[in-house]
Amino acid sequence: MEYKKIDEADIDFLRNVCGEDQVVLRDNILDDFCHDEMPGQFSAPDVMVYVQDVSAVSLILKYANQKKIAVTPRGQGTGLVGGAIPLFGGILLNLSKMNRILELDENNFTLTVEPGVLIMDIYEYVEARGLYYPPNPGEKSASIGGNVSTNAGGMSAVKYGVTRDYVRGLEVVTAEGEILSLGGKIAKNSSGYSLVQLITGSEGTLAVVTKIILRLIPKPKFLQSLLIPFDNLPAAIKTVPEIFKSKIIPRSIEFMTQDMLSSSEQYLGRRFPDHSGNAYLLLAFDGNSLPEIEKESDQIAELCILHGAKDAFLIDTNERNDAVWKPRSSYLEIIKASTSEIDECDVVVPIDRVAEFVEFAQNLEKECGLRIRSMGHAGDGNLHIYALRDKLDQKLWKEKIDHLFDRLYSHASEIGGKVSGEHGIGSAKLPYQYQIEGKAVMQMMYRIKQAFDPNEILNPGKVVQYN
Amino acid sequence: MEYKKIDEADIDFLRNVCGEDQVVLRDNILDDFCHDEMPGQFSAPDVMVYVQDVSAVSLILKYANQKKIAVTPRGQGTGLVGGAIPLFGGILLNLSKMNRILELDENNFTLTVEPGVLIMDIYEYVEARGLYYPPNPGEKSASIGGNVSTNAGGMSAVKYGVTRDYVRGLEVVTAEGEILSLGGKIAKNSSGYSLVQLITGSEGTLAVVTKIILRLIPKPKFLQSLLIPFDNLPAAIKTVPEIFKSKIIPRSIEFMTQDMLSSSEQYLGRRFPDHSGNAYLLLAFDGNSLPEIEKESDQIAELCILHGAKDAFLIDTNERNDAVWKPRSSYLEIIKASTSEIDECDVVVPIDRVAEFVEFAQNLEKECGLRIRSMGHAGDGNLHIYALRDKLDQKLWKEKIDHLFDRLYSHASEIGGKVSGEHGIGSAKLPYQYQIEGKAVMQMMYRIKQAFDPNEILNPGKVVQYN
Repeated sequence: MEYKKIDEADIDFLRNVCGEDQVVLRDNILDDFCHDEMPGQFSAPDVMVYVQDVSAVSLILKYANQKKIAVTPRGQGTGLVGGAIPLFGGILLNLSKMNRILELDENNFTLTVEPGVLIMDIYEYVEARGLYYPPNPGEKSASIGGNVSTNAGGMSAVKYGVTRDYVRGLEVVTAEGEILSLGGKIAKNSSGYSLVQLITGSEGTLAVVTKIILRLIPKPKFLQSLLIPFDNLPAAIKTVPEIFKSKIIPRSIEFMTQDMLSSSEQYLGRRFPDHSGNAYLLLAFDGNSLPEIEKESDQIAELCILHGAKDAFLIDTNERNDAVWKPRSSYLEIIKASTSEIDECDVVVPIDRVAEFVEFAQNLEKECGLRIRSMGHAGDGNLHIYALRDKLDQKLWKEKIDHLFDRLYSHASEIGGKVSGEHGIGSAKLPYQYQIEGKAVMQMMYRIKQAFDPNEILNPGKVVQYN
Repeated sequence: MEYKKIDEADIDFLRNVCGEDQVVLRDNILDDFCHDEMPGQFSAPDVMVYVQDVSAVSLILKYANQKKIAVTPRGQGTGLVGGAIPLFGGILLNLSKMNRILELDENNFTLTVEPGVLIMDIYEYVEARGLYYPPNPGEKSASIGGNVSTNAGGMSAVKYGVTRDYVRGLEVVTAEGEILSLGGKIAKNSSGYSLVQLITGSEGTLAVVTKIILRLIPKPKFLQSLLIPFDNLPAAIKTVPEIFKSKIIPRSIEFMTQDMLSSSEQYLGRRFPDHSGNAYLLLAFDGNSLPEIEKESDQIAELCILHGAKDAFLIDTNERNDAVWKPRSSYLEIIKASTSEIDECDVVVPIDRVAEFVEFAQNLEKECGLRIRSMGHAGDGNLHIYALRDKLDQKLWKEKIDHLFDRLYSHASEIGGKVSGEHGIGSAKLPYQYQIEGKAVMQMMYRIKQAFDPNEILNPGKVVQYN
């Protein structure tokens, strides 16, 4: 795919639309805007423009579509698959200044926001009003536009689902500059194809999201956690299907290992409250009835002990809660700090295949000659398998990573898994996406891409491959 | 759009694929297969074929696509917008014999079914095992394939959402005969465009659904209802946003009027347990903690009385439960039995506009010279406004209906509503869909149609208009 290079006339056009100070030329663009949180990929745009309203987005896309200029939308750049990297140069459409909370509608349980609002600001805003936005991705400084674009998941998916379950309406701009208003504040909708659902998770390749209507729920009144030590990781994870068989759905079921907790103690400078296990399940329960939550967590504690847990600790103070959840939520930083470079596989498998898959991944350490660390959402089957580069040279590292990923995704495919549970495909996972989904499915995805973006100007090189 | 007429060679082909006794020729096709539950539209296929597996569906679509024969998929024909009517003749693809429950996976909380399984059979099957399929559409003899195709809603959407929230995976056959396996038993998925979500609600116009992986949840242990009489309908409906403000989400909030209950008493031959109100709210609460449910329903009862309710009756026996819910669930039959013909508007509006919209609809009785009855899901904004033909002649009836619908949908559009909350667009609501969504959105939907079905053989005349 060939794109037009940015010239003086294009710069003039952008300055006219957005104002001179909102247009940043190549030489002044910080490296920060040339990558995301995935290491190893770097590509600079020819120009970055801060857009501040939908009409600017529309004018720019109409122009770029006519001239065939690549346009890459960007929020906070916290992605992990290169989704916001301008692989073909062109315009980096920076949406971070479209960050207003537009309307809280308490009658309809909706919050209308611009895409640049950070999800931590959404939590704070709605929880102060007794409301709750359930999706709970690890990276709280991500923008909601990015969360919608990757259909971000997080630690509450077991009970509450993922971002797409909370998107009621979108305003988007197509590659041709058309402004579409999709869905709305309505709780049900069977009015034609769900473009809202199609665009959610499309990683900025179909349209640019300029407004989002989120569904909220009442904030659960009570929350408590359980920390459960086991002798080893397989024993911990194998308990999860037993938990589900008891017909109780906790808000979160995460797993952690002792070596991860040791790294965390070093990194955070803070002692973890228990050292009796080599592996842990960490569960959260929430609801409006404290006795009911207590009953559920007692029942699960007993069940875990019956299945080999060494103990079960109720975590019911804020301080202890912080002490057990902080290592989990800081794990990505902790791992990054422990090596020269990492790469990650965000695979998702059926819940009852998690134990097997983690063991499979761990066994690849030897075969691949790589340090491998796993963590993840035991309760929803979404695993994060990290490879650590340590002292490997770039060439060897790449070879080993390719081999590792090939093995991981092939196995995931065999057991009904998919490439990404929550991070998306971007450019980094594209070959594996083709491998797992197969030609016919990807051909259909590509046709959808063409339907939305005939000139393929929107976030090129991501999600689908160009013919 | 021109389609090839069925000839002897086509019949031979179908007999070869499906067996002679599975192919029904024009003269032997019962009228039942030429319409759905929406009155007033009738169109016969040239041939009806019962398919029994995915490979037959694939062979037939590949053939029909090459020859350009129209193909209309059909389940139980319980739709209300003409979605299963073969408007262009051709092949009626009857999926009702693909009705096996394939697998219950209790570890992953999934049920895998063929599209012809009736939803009442799903309820029975999973509830006997302590599990629960929450979508609760009025028509329990509908097939799950039809429910997926219209993204059916029902009475539990307030708390539990609609069909699309429970579709984890699909096997579908495209118009060109490709068999696609989409999604799976996985709880999270950010692997490219969500074809699962796009096909859910597409009314058989993009692909034929041949297998469905449904998400289940544990069956709530307790259920109780509240019947709350009010002096009049506006007073009843205006209370609903107050209920939500209390941060309690009942499973259902329905409204009923005295005149509807009188018709129901006549029709069902059974006295309704209360006559003190001219209008009622009927609420259901469910959960695993009886004290919590009781607390919630007490709180809502008090709140309603504070907002003008005449009383509040706790419904906690099966017998009383039947007596109050039966009129609600039989309302469509009751209304049909009370007049010569009906037509219906399945509009959805924001929850806090329901009172206003019902009043608006009622005021159109005089303007349109039509008997109008409303009922609906007060808790999710999805209304069913029925026009009753009574003694009007066909021409006048059509004119009045057109005028009524035009007024209803225009007003819905003004207040952020959409054409259909749960019944879909089919052919009956197509003009209003274009009116509310606008040209740009419908153009995008049409491009998606072309991406999936370039020869436009699949369920032609539905959801999008042909150019």
